[in-house]
Amino acid sequence: MQTPELDVSEWFNTDTPLTLGGLRGRVVVIEAFQMLCPGCVLHGIPLVQSIQKTFPEEKVAVIGLHTVFEHHDAMTPVSLKAFLHEYRITFPVGVDRQGVGQLPNTMSRFGMRGTPSLVLLDQSGRIVVHHLGQVSELQLGSEIGSLLTRGAASVTSNPATVNQSEGASGSCNV
Amino acid sequence: MQTPELDVSEWFNTDTPLTLGGLRGRVVVIEAFQMLCPGCVLHGIPLVQSIQKTFPEEKVAVIGLHTVFEHHDAMTPVSLKAFLHEYRITFPVGVDRQGVGQLPNTMSRFGMRGTPSLVLLDQSGRIVVHHLGQVSELQLGSEIGSLLTRGAASVTSNPATVNQSEGASGSCNV
Amino acid sequence: MQTPELDVSEWFNTDTPLTLGGLRGRVVVIEAFQMLCPGCVLHGIPLVQSIQKTFPEEKVAVIGLHTVFEHHDAMTPVSLKAFLHEYRITFPVGVDRQGVGQLPNTMSRFGMRGTPSLVLLDQSGRIVVHHLGQVSELQLGSEIGSLLTRGAASVTSNPATVNQSEGASGSCNV
Amino acid sequence: MQTPELDVSEWFNTDTPLTLGGLRGRVVVIEAFQMLCPGCVLHGIPLVQSIQKTFPEEKVAVIGLHTVFEHHDAMTPVSLKAFLHEYRITFPVGVDRQGVGQLPNTMSRFGMRGTPSLVLLDQSGRIVVHHLGQVSELQLGSEIGSLLTRGAASVTSNPATVNQSEGASGSCNV
Repeated sequence: MQTPELDVSEWFNTDTPLTLGGLRGRVVVIEAFQMLCPGCVLHGIPLVQSIQKTFPEEKVAVIGLHTVFEHHDAMTPVSLKAFLHEYRITFPVGVDRQGVGQLPNTMSRFGMRGTPSLVLLDQSGRIVVHHLGQVSELQLGSEIGSLLTRGAASVTSNPATVNQSEGASGSCNV
Repeated sequence: MQTPELDVSEWFNTDTPLTLGGLRGRVVVIEAFQMLCPGCVLHGIPLVQSIQKTFPEEKVAVIGLHTVFEHHDAMTPVSLKAFLHEYRITFPVGVDRQGVGQLPNTMSRFGMRGTPSLVLLDQSGRIVVHHLGQVSELQLGSEIGSLLTRGAASVTSNPATVNQSEGASGSCNV
Repeated sequence: MQTPELDVSEWFNTDTPLTLGGLRGRVVVIEAFQMLCPGCVLHGIPLVQSIQKTFPEEKVAVIGLHTVFEHHDAMTPVSLKAFLHEYRITFPVGVDRQGVGQLPNTMSRFGMRGTPSLVLLDQSGRIVVHHLGQVSELQLGSEIGSLLTRGAASVTSNPATVNQSEGASGSCNV
Repeated sequence: MQTPELDVSEWFNTDTPLTLGGLRGRVVVIEAFQMLCPGCVLHGIPLVQSIQKTFPEEKVAVIGLHTVFEHHDAMTPVSLKAFLHEYRITFPVGVDRQGVGQLPNTMSRFGMRGTPSLVLLDQSGRIVVHHLGQVSELQLGSEIGSLLTRGAASVTSNPATVNQSEGASGSCNV
């Protein structure tokens, strides 16, 4: 599928709004989360914080996306800001724009089915893989290492694969 | 010290407001937390959920106390309600009433110095111990077992002991 | 049941052989393990090492018992000695004496059904509880705290309770 | 450095002895361990068991190497055999041959400095990286993913990198 663009109503941890188009040339990891989703707090966010530490920023960009699809009044940007501070989250986080339905816009465009969802884009912006729930670090590391080696030039069209981890504790599904 | 009474502006998970006076005859565990405090989410709340499972409710009462002393706008009762739902917290939780200062009233009265704080009361309502930060389950189990054996009748006046756990990750101090 | 005495062929970490009779007046925790039992290495031994740190030695005595009932040639005293060194085990450990059957003598006498097994004795030497497999620290702490409070004098005859933990990973059963 | 060959006195979990030469065309992970080394039991072996599950055997070969350099009498092949059974280790494990010094032969040839040590070879048999102690799964996954993508044909000469993880708990150093 053609990679959709982000639709973000407010950014944290960045002075300028980000677009996927502007990140071409880097591997991109999008971590879609809700601040009150236990699986996001216990697994999803620590995982991408490890990605931040393991890979150089100019090669692998980590973006958080706050995809609120339930308890909208409880997870406002005011609460999110405090959450990011308390959990020491330093990567850019965008608030997924609420649309007319239950799901926010970017979440709908990407066909995400719950949180935490991790989407991996290659250097040319193509979606390589979707993970829903808890992700194996070996598996994800391998996918990133593969992209870093292949480079943007030789990327061939990969159909997106959706892996729904079994036994994921605390994930929140649509 | 004379045990102060709770000052709660709103209760969740109980139809009738609770008082410490009304819990005489039972060991009482008060878990003071903030919903955006990582140490509370990772250690404090799972610990008292284990207490709930391990000891019969008619002998050991578990109460949560939402002692917001920072990021007040981010941790409102609306957000707390969703938090309790998502983390499957079923014990009664009171919102500590905001006073004129930074600290909410009950937190001030008990002299709590941060979150998570755990206060253990014997069956006659006396404070046996204060724990700040991560608590050893063996130690806490021993304190509860001791109270259950001693019973309310023979409880002698214990000066409250404050244990501040070292190396507590994610705790939030005043 | 009348508490049987230990039958030990060799001791480590103590200059003089221990007997349960000689430990009257203290709560006694017997940790029966095999050095190649994963559940013992992952759960049983760390648990009693925590007991050692939490409770004063003059009130709670921790004893290891190497109850080899399988792979006898693989878990000799020579291997056990290196194991104790590498895992920094400092409490006294006795080698349960091999008898004529598969099970060593003390294990048979106590009716243990596998490893790790934890037996808790009160200050008068009576068996309070048997645990097989992974043990809740809150539960065990409570049992110890209760004994410490009750004291030897007032101990009444308790029938031994056997708790076989469900879902214990890595335990080895007879 | 030119990759040395294994020098193994006895194999488990394989009918025919393995050589690194015979594994050309596959990525090879050598896990050097001692059965009584806590860091090996807690981190090293679970890690390579995850590698086994994550990557297809025909692309990534996992080999264990029992590199005993201390407590030789305690970690004999008889004990190792029981250890492999109890910890459900199913990949091939070779016993590193004892030479004239303290260190066994293969360990010396590879310049390993303790256990657990992990050596990663590319499909042409060249050493890509040495890890001593606890290894990041993201990092190792990335290294494997990179090799799988690059393929044997285009592998260029990499100087071996030795990463000694800091704060590795339970590792045993020469």
